[in-house]
Amino acid sequence: MSNGTLILMRHGESEWNASNQFTGWVDVALTDKGEAEAKRAGELLAEHDLLPDVLYTSLLRRAIATAQIALDTADRHWIPVVRDWRLNERHYGALQGLNKADTLEKYGKEQFMLWRRSYDTPPPPIDPDAEYSQTHDPRYADLAEVPLTECLKDVVERLIPYFTETIAADITAGKTVLIAAHGNSLRALVKYLDGISDADIAGLNIPTGNPLRYDLDENLKPLNPGGTYLDPEAAAAGAAAVAAQGQK
Amino acid sequence: MSNGTLILMRHGESEWNASNQFTGWVDVALTDKGEAEAKRAGELLAEHDLLPDVLYTSLLRRAIATAQIALDTADRHWIPVVRDWRLNERHYGALQGLNKADTLEKYGKEQFMLWRRSYDTPPPPIDPDAEYSQTHDPRYADLAEVPLTECLKDVVERLIPYFTETIAADITAGKTVLIAAHGNSLRALVKYLDGISDADIAGLNIPTGNPLRYDLDENLKPLNPGGTYLDPEAAAAGAAAVAAQGQK
Repeated sequence: MSNGTLILMRHGESEWNASNQFTGWVDVALTDKGEAEAKRAGELLAEHDLLPDVLYTSLLRRAIATAQIALDTADRHWIPVVRDWRLNERHYGALQGLNKADTLEKYGKEQFMLWRRSYDTPPPPIDPDAEYSQTHDPRYADLAEVPLTECLKDVVERLIPYFTETIAADITAGKTVLIAAHGNSLRALVKYLDGISDADIAGLNIPTGNPLRYDLDENLKPLNPGGTYLDPEAAAAGAAAVAAQGQK
Repeated sequence: MSNGTLILMRHGESEWNASNQFTGWVDVALTDKGEAEAKRAGELLAEHDLLPDVLYTSLLRRAIATAQIALDTADRHWIPVVRDWRLNERHYGALQGLNKADTLEKYGKEQFMLWRRSYDTPPPPIDPDAEYSQTHDPRYADLAEVPLTECLKDVVERLIPYFTETIAADITAGKTVLIAAHGNSLRALVKYLDGISDADIAGLNIPTGNPLRYDLDENLKPLNPGGTYLDPEAAAAGAAAVAAQGQK
């Protein structure tokens, strides 16, 4: 029997997605396309009568705005909200702000893919006083240490305890929980839920604007392993596009 | 010495402000003008370096969206949020949805003003099954009784205990607290803070898009009675406009 329902929602296109820059903890806004993706996600929630009881977001405006637009569209803008830095995107270290194509050209494909998809190799740390560092950002004033870089393993280590100790209580209470977050924080969560290996997680991508539903048992194990996309056609098309990227 | 700071923010123009309908608990959206007012409020917060640590809103999207836009403008979109029905606008009973000019014509000025500004005379109750009733709205499912009408005294009685028992703890902890709410729920709060009589509160109006700051001592008494508008010129112009309304 299902305990509760978890919905994972990746933010829509941001300004730096559009300009092809590494973003990480830099707090950029959604583009018009990103806002439209958020609205589409809200329409999917309403069409499936999948109405969240509580929302968790990161501290970054692209996730906050995506949730706001989607919930307003689904007429659930009034539910309780919890924001936490543990849902933030992976900190991209010294790469934050750099153009991805320039970085690929400068460092070569092997190093580039290692930074992007290795489980435990973080990018070089950012200078704490650099323009795109978050060391002096007031929203992280309570953290013992603001990250200077993170690999996916670091995200797993900060996020999964927060999930099991805090978010899980709402799920096991039978609520429908919406998490509005980022490509890599959601990959960390899916890795945990589906028991994906450190190697295999490299091949997993989560599309934008397409909420991913998990029905979880009392031990937080998925009754639907891999989850269920609310728009399965779009998810299949997105997976095909990702697979084609390596082909040229 | 100041304990903490309270900022009151009334939502910007809503669709039913624009169409001159009684709104109350009906959940209408902001107009473009209302969104611009919210942005202006956020610019005022930033200009005065008055940066909220925590946000309280009603369960109505015009207050939720005003806060979201203002905080995003002031780069404080990431602060904790609490939403509570006790901050809702006054329930306007059977008048909800009616055109104000039609109502004035039908019932006459005396009755009209009694419903609008009397402290303890509520409008007639709405039919629980009427289109603009909130009796079956899921966001109020936990309430023992969903209001069918309210006078300002009813708003005081639901809001002030919530303020003194919950919101006040954040203020006395030294935080800067933002409340994003409505004309009448903010009038109820100002009545309490400034000790305004039941008769005199009829003459008090709170403008939109112009945050009102109170510095409170340890007993929640204002060090600046009447509060301080962040845009004093606009507040004076607004008060003059309201005074002129009676004149023709």
